[in-house]
Amino acid sequence: MAQAATRTARDRAVHRYGPRLAHSAQAGDRAGGIPGWLDERRRSGTFEVRRIPFGEMVKWRIDPDTGNLVHDSGRFFSIEGLTVRADSGTTWSQPIINQPETGVLGILVKEIDGVLRFLMQAKMEPGNIGLFQLGPTVQATRSNYTGVHRGRPTPYIEYFVGERRGEVLTDVLQSEQGDSFLRKRNRNMVVEITEDIEVRDDYRWLTLGEIHQLLAVDNLVNMDARTVLSSLPFPPGDEDAAPHSDTEILSWLTGIKTRHEREVVTSPLARIEDWRRTPAEIARSDGRHLRVLAVSVQAGNREVTNWTQPLLAAQRQGIAAFIVRRTAGEPQVLVQGLTQPGTFDVAEMAPTVQCVTDGWHDLPEKPPYLDYVLAVPDDRVHYSALLSEEGGRFYRRDNRYLVVEADETLGGDPPDAYRWLGFSQLKRFTGYSNHVDVEARTLIACLQSLWGKEPLWARG
Amino acid sequence: MAQAATRTARDRAVHRYGPRLAHSAQAGDRAGGIPGWLDERRRSGTFEVRRIPFGEMVKWRIDPDTGNLVHDSGRFFSIEGLTVRADSGTTWSQPIINQPETGVLGILVKEIDGVLRFLMQAKMEPGNIGLFQLGPTVQATRSNYTGVHRGRPTPYIEYFVGERRGEVLTDVLQSEQGDSFLRKRNRNMVVEITEDIEVRDDYRWLTLGEIHQLLAVDNLVNMDARTVLSSLPFPPGDEDAAPHSDTEILSWLTGIKTRHEREVVTSPLARIEDWRRTPAEIARSDGRHLRVLAVSVQAGNREVTNWTQPLLAAQRQGIAAFIVRRTAGEPQVLVQGLTQPGTFDVAEMAPTVQCVTDGWHDLPEKPPYLDYVLAVPDDRVHYSALLSEEGGRFYRRDNRYLVVEADETLGGDPPDAYRWLGFSQLKRFTGYSNHVDVEARTLIACLQSLWGKEPLWARG
Repeated sequence: MAQAATRTARDRAVHRYGPRLAHSAQAGDRAGGIPGWLDERRRSGTFEVRRIPFGEMVKWRIDPDTGNLVHDSGRFFSIEGLTVRADSGTTWSQPIINQPETGVLGILVKEIDGVLRFLMQAKMEPGNIGLFQLGPTVQATRSNYTGVHRGRPTPYIEYFVGERRGEVLTDVLQSEQGDSFLRKRNRNMVVEITEDIEVRDDYRWLTLGEIHQLLAVDNLVNMDARTVLSSLPFPPGDEDAAPHSDTEILSWLTGIKTRHEREVVTSPLARIEDWRRTPAEIARSDGRHLRVLAVSVQAGNREVTNWTQPLLAAQRQGIAAFIVRRTAGEPQVLVQGLTQPGTFDVAEMAPTVQCVTDGWHDLPEKPPYLDYVLAVPDDRVHYSALLSEEGGRFYRRDNRYLVVEADETLGGDPPDAYRWLGFSQLKRFTGYSNHVDVEARTLIACLQSLWGKEPLWARG
Repeated sequence: MAQAATRTARDRAVHRYGPRLAHSAQAGDRAGGIPGWLDERRRSGTFEVRRIPFGEMVKWRIDPDTGNLVHDSGRFFSIEGLTVRADSGTTWSQPIINQPETGVLGILVKEIDGVLRFLMQAKMEPGNIGLFQLGPTVQATRSNYTGVHRGRPTPYIEYFVGERRGEVLTDVLQSEQGDSFLRKRNRNMVVEITEDIEVRDDYRWLTLGEIHQLLAVDNLVNMDARTVLSSLPFPPGDEDAAPHSDTEILSWLTGIKTRHEREVVTSPLARIEDWRRTPAEIARSDGRHLRVLAVSVQAGNREVTNWTQPLLAAQRQGIAAFIVRRTAGEPQVLVQGLTQPGTFDVAEMAPTVQCVTDGWHDLPEKPPYLDYVLAVPDDRVHYSALLSEEGGRFYRRDNRYLVVEADETLGGDPPDAYRWLGFSQLKRFTGYSNHVDVEARTLIACLQSLWGKEPLWARG
């Protein structure tokens, strides 16, 4: 009885939804039609994205005092300078997206024919590779869904905020890229409804199994969908293959945070060092990190919309990889405690290897485990795909996401910035804000898509 | 087996230490000697705290450009202006302590004669009521323990950072007063050692039971000790009387955070509105909130140390109260989701009533539950004491801390900013940073001190 009560409070979502989500993960055979559907949405209208000089942006301007890129409304987001002064004395400056608003990334689920299904959206974003990717039901900034942009109302938003009608499976603020955003979080939600709703043209009900199949396709499931999926109370089961207790992991992360004390201040974009500005681009002289550019967008089918906006582009393709190892039940995951300039709470748990923007060729030392991950033989690569980062802020930025299995050469304790976590344990930390970074959450979604598949994951 | 493994990862500290801490909570009869010991420490040397004009501070100065109070080292802390612009359009400005450093608040525990004992310190702070209060083993800013102030080394710090020798019971960054500090956190740690150590003059081993008795005494156990005690994996047991699941509580807190979007920026202290400056004080014209002042301190027994520093003083005594209700096991606690200007992550769980500095006489509406709490008959007041806030930053600031039991008139669902939590559930959230505020954590320590006492708490 006491045990049952404990479960009620702590894990009700897992115990109530775990088995139903597992059922959905094993159902559905219509994933094959989704790439064609996205193509059809693409062909159904006029969609054009064109790079333009900053000076041709409309409703956006370069602030004459600071050089920052700002929206005329004073809302939405801005691109400013950021300076990080580490305790060690080193200083780093870069452009950063300042978007204090918290948006909603939400997926509606509903049981149809005995199976939980997810209402997914064919979502166009100007920076997307392929323009249309599969997104969550709702993907909206606060300015969007409260109507600051005077755009059309956000479909289905009423099931997430305000008069919410569904049961909440998860609802937590989650961070986005710490190399590009200043302390940005979005509200990640999954809500179950029981009533019948109209399914609009750009939306489809998919089972979790179908979404999992689509996660194996390059540049198809967008970042917003992936981060929401990572928060699902899934997979079911209590097994916990964690070599360290939660207290030990929290202590380890606390130690990393206190060793990385630093001062993070926004500064005028015009005055950051080592970055040069041309009429159409702001970039580092040495070609590292990101660059800022502007695009003009034409989009629509019946009604055509035009807008311009700045975007961030990566200079090189990045990589994000989890090294995992098998146990009798769930896999264990080698996690890195990583500090990035825009991280909300100093450090978060990150993939074993994450060199998303800087590449590594000109770094004094290669990131640990990078060589290992790149040299893993095919039979130990359990997941590999190119996945795009958010196309509303990034211009064709994709990363190679990998899940690779450790072999016997990877023995011994990892370096101090790394720890082995049980997968359920990592999921528990994902349930709280500011603990797991967005690249790791993408990999969690990818790992979940392998659930039930031998040899990595003994069925729970 | 699966269940045992889960416990290993999630709750090992509770399962391993819960029974031992319970044993310690029932042991010890030397609490009575502690007030006399603090008196004796006080009499053993010269201790004088005197208010001075800002202009007489040494190593501190008023920055001529900003009016901020800053230390010559550029470290330690500063007092600056803070402006909060809420989404609703309202603006609030006030002085704020900016202390980006993360200090250590740590208690060493050791089993002596079969009972876990806590190494507590007779700690002098200039703002303390009574100058000496009972503090944790270590209470040190990073500047202190890394030697920036060129002071003496911090005793026992080596058991907490660097070559840590103990087993960690808890280690997490915890927030401090959101009305006075800008996003400040300290590292709260409890570490068990097994080796023999020298007990210095200002330190004593106390059982948890003795500390619990001392928590009933006005202004004796300091804030730093209370917040560390609140993180203990105690009381033991799994019972969980929570009416809402953790997912529901997180969703509720996430909702409060997104409804309180705001912009928080530091600004020159000289230019904040509605605050007037005299040579010895910065205060609001209407007498509300806090005031800034400066003190000169002489302290020491063998060696005498002199220093000056600014402190914050409250204009009125505050109150922090939990309304609780009985269940078959642990109590339930009525928690408020509260936003304060300096809160690290927008909102935290706070006491049912917390009007620490503003009083309430001139507010348009009384805070909810304030009348209720003040009118509760004595037989429903389970805890009541005046407790001091941190004497290194606050000048004689104490608050009335109350735990009162609800009666049948308090039926129905609470307003949206309030939720009933099970005590174990509230403790779980305390295990993660940025979820529970420091006033609520003091009340958690007070509630823990009632553990095992009928009628509120059926023995677990």
